[in-house]
Amino acid sequence: MTTIEILGFTSAFLTTCSFIPQAIQVIKTKDTESLSLAMYSIFTLGVAGWLVYGLVKQDNAMIAANMITLVLSSVILGIKLRNDVKIKRARLIEE
Amino acid sequence: MTTIEILGFTSAFLTTCSFIPQAIQVIKTKDTESLSLAMYSIFTLGVAGWLVYGLVKQDNAMIAANMITLVLSSVILGIKLRNDVKIKRARLIEE
Repeated sequence: MTTIEILGFTSAFLTTCSFIPQAIQVIKTKDTESLSLAMYSIFTLGVAGWLVYGLVKQDNAMIAANMITLVLSSVILGIKLRNDVKIKRARLIEE
Repeated sequence: MTTIEILGFTSAFLTTCSFIPQAIQVIKTKDTESLSLAMYSIFTLGVAGWLVYGLVKQDNAMIAANMITLVLSSVILGIKLRNDVKIKRARLIEE
């Protein structure tokens, strides 16, 4: 493997794995207040697009990285959505 | 441009731009409580790696996308770090 290939794989590993601590924190604390709903909606859609791109190009590294990221960002987005629905419901009851 | 190229560009656009609403939210609210410090540290490092990769490969789309993402994630990481230092200091004073 060349130096540049190692750099590519390391970068892919880092950007993919970075979502693990965020997903763990959200699962543990259930706190999603400062997470942007727009970010996770757009990001999850983009990663799904990358996954399809990888599948069409038959690029295994791309498929693996985007599958992991898609699972992690979907978990975060799911909890964020659930919390936001809860907050909206609570506000409606208050009014 | 082929359909698969359009998919690639759209996905790159979405994953890059997704950090804009998160950066805006953090700048506006200064709230970073539910953001993972580990995530933004690892992610920013990974994006810097991708930027170097793009520069070596002379891939303009990669350079542009990763430069934008690097700026956005650095802003979020910077505010998160500042807030965490503030919280630690406040705790030390309390003790």
